[in-house]
Amino acid sequence: MPSDDSLVPVVVLVSGGMDSVTALHHAHADATQQVVAGLSFHYGSKHNDCEIPLARQHCEQLGVAHHVIDLGFVNEHFESALLQSGGDIPEGHYEEANMRQTVVPFRNGIMLSIAAGLAESKGATGLVIAAHSGDHAVYPDCREEFMQAMGSAITQGTYEQLQVLRPFIDMRKEDIAARGAELGIDFATTWSCYKGGKTHCGQCGTCVERREAFSIAGLDDPTEYLQAGPLPEKPPSS
Amino acid sequence: MPSDDSLVPVVVLVSGGMDSVTALHHAHADATQQVVAGLSFHYGSKHNDCEIPLARQHCEQLGVAHHVIDLGFVNEHFESALLQSGGDIPEGHYEEANMRQTVVPFRNGIMLSIAAGLAESKGATGLVIAAHSGDHAVYPDCREEFMQAMGSAITQGTYEQLQVLRPFIDMRKEDIAARGAELGIDFATTWSCYKGGKTHCGQCGTCVERREAFSIAGLDDPTEYLQAGPLPEKPPSS
Repeated sequence: MPSDDSLVPVVVLVSGGMDSVTALHHAHADATQQVVAGLSFHYGSKHNDCEIPLARQHCEQLGVAHHVIDLGFVNEHFESALLQSGGDIPEGHYEEANMRQTVVPFRNGIMLSIAAGLAESKGATGLVIAAHSGDHAVYPDCREEFMQAMGSAITQGTYEQLQVLRPFIDMRKEDIAARGAELGIDFATTWSCYKGGKTHCGQCGTCVERREAFSIAGLDDPTEYLQAGPLPEKPPSS
Repeated sequence: MPSDDSLVPVVVLVSGGMDSVTALHHAHADATQQVVAGLSFHYGSKHNDCEIPLARQHCEQLGVAHHVIDLGFVNEHFESALLQSGGDIPEGHYEEANMRQTVVPFRNGIMLSIAAGLAESKGATGLVIAAHSGDHAVYPDCREEFMQAMGSAITQGTYEQLQVLRPFIDMRKEDIAARGAELGIDFATTWSCYKGGKTHCGQCGTCVERREAFSIAGLDDPTEYLQAGPLPEKPPSS
């Protein structure tokens, strides 16, 4: 067990979804890291008010400071169906072209940049994001080329050469679900659905992905869905 | 004169300082570009309330939409003498070690990221920033390595492969002053002083730099200073 001085102080991006909540617990369980803070962003999406209180609940459970950054300007100035100011959330698989409506322009760049500034202010030298191999090419700011360049910008643009850490980058969502189960996470206290509301819809892109992850991992899905009928078929690969 | 369709739509970062105001007028005068919006950030610095109204004034003068993005979280969570929440602004040249106190962690990364998201929402394909050759190595997020990586992240992370444009990157501050004078800018309606207040102090790093720029360019300095005495000597180069 390393002494405190040898621990890498990290800030974890934690939205309250199953991937980032697992990343938080995973970092907390890592004997080489010390979680300085969990960080959530309120950018005016339809589901922020569902997920952020759950992010806070997990931080409190682990005794980790939790900060919520308000990005009110996104809802005011940006265009996306994901936002309260936007249109209806499309249903079906992420691969469908209509999921492009849910892109919030450069959202990951904005969140990573702010997290970098906050991490440097708090003395952290690592920034943990739950990016994984199944992240969708429909979002340009999830692509590997973007993540490489952004990681480099953050390292170059900070005194302490802050590192972006992606512990799950070689894992699929079902692997993350399995890791979360191993860590004893109650996934009923995580939120995915883009539509917001009181209950997961079961049919939007992120609900479909959530249901598939539990199913493939062979785990019980503790989530209540409004429509838990058969999963939609994947469209022909494009 | 190209037709409207052939114009490159750009968003200009305009703080209200002499460099960015010149960049705004320069882009507006560029027959190949159309300025879609000017963008200012209120991040809780001591001088935001001095500079932002001037940014707006120049946008209005040119008939350009002006947006102010509120970054209240910076003042709340970040550490810097530049902020209202921080200590006193140091005096003297930028090269002095104490100027490090005025660093707002990853400020340029945060501003460029948000500007990228807004630019994509507004249909712009270029993002103009008044970076110049005299930008200070004391700020890691002004260094060339950072700007290259950040520009790449923005291009990779947006659908339209948004370009970061730095028209002044090979110019010194005095060259920008000369270009501004050529464009007929009234520099009395620009703000530099980090201390804020009603009148430029004349002694902080950015006031010293402003005074030197007019002097080297051989231009009359229209600025009123509280202390317009002799410029401090530069420290030995480190």
